[in-house]
Amino acid sequence: MRVISVDPGYDRMGVAVMELKGESEELVYSTCVETDKRQSLNERLEFLGNKFKQLLTLYKPNALGIETIFFNKNQKTAIGVAEARGILIYLAQTHGCLVYEFGPQEVKIAVTGYGKSDKSAVFDMIKRLIPSTPQKVLDDEYDAIAIGITCLAHYGRTK
Amino acid sequence: MRVISVDPGYDRMGVAVMELKGESEELVYSTCVETDKRQSLNERLEFLGNKFKQLLTLYKPNALGIETIFFNKNQKTAIGVAEARGILIYLAQTHGCLVYEFGPQEVKIAVTGYGKSDKSAVFDMIKRLIPSTPQKVLDDEYDAIAIGITCLAHYGRTK
Repeated sequence: MRVISVDPGYDRMGVAVMELKGESEELVYSTCVETDKRQSLNERLEFLGNKFKQLLTLYKPNALGIETIFFNKNQKTAIGVAEARGILIYLAQTHGCLVYEFGPQEVKIAVTGYGKSDKSAVFDMIKRLIPSTPQKVLDDEYDAIAIGITCLAHYGRTK
Repeated sequence: MRVISVDPGYDRMGVAVMELKGESEELVYSTCVETDKRQSLNERLEFLGNKFKQLLTLYKPNALGIETIFFNKNQKTAIGVAEARGILIYLAQTHGCLVYEFGPQEVKIAVTGYGKSDKSAVFDMIKRLIPSTPQKVLDDEYDAIAIGITCLAHYGRTK
């Protein structure tokens, strides 16, 4: 199974493409797509959607792994993230992907075995599990890789 | 200018296609798309997205009119509506539509001239403005027509 995993946002979107090679996870591609802050929210969402569509066409994943949304103090941000999420899920579905959603705690457990790990512990473990992980990338890209690891751990061996 | 207007939701989505004929608004098409409650949210969003895409292809509107989202007590509902909204806006943009957003008060002012009108006053005025409005439809369909009237009032004569 090949998974595309996303840390959704309209400001920055981390994306990873991963698959299982035998027993270990392999990182096929990862990036952090940034949008232009001078553009309107709708223009930024269009840009992200188009980028994501290109990746779906290029990498032909079987599944999307995406983080569930949780509400923070800023409702306006949450709405923008939910709108981005809707677009990504819709595009993945129309490209034949199954959609799997994970909460932040599930991701931490899948990567480190402990649901309250801090970010640095998660990132360290990612680098150990996948030595080809690029160094010095934005958090969003690591987050996407963590979601990919989670998705492969849950569903990679059953497909 | 031909406008497609939407009252977004994942449960029911009101849609109207309208245009100006001389000085008066003409209703080309309207419907209320309902989704299957037994399906998952993502399945329902995919269904709505595909329906909307068909309407964009069929009616070729120049603009999308859509209501802004506002938060109510139920955050889970708000997230689902925001996800639906993201999909509709993205699809309209990729079909060449300009996107115009209106708050509930703007819609009431455009239709009745008064920002605190109740639903029945808005619906009565819709039927007067557009005698071809179907009788006995779901509120979501009337809401979509009201958003279409607003969009044409604001932008119909400038395009």
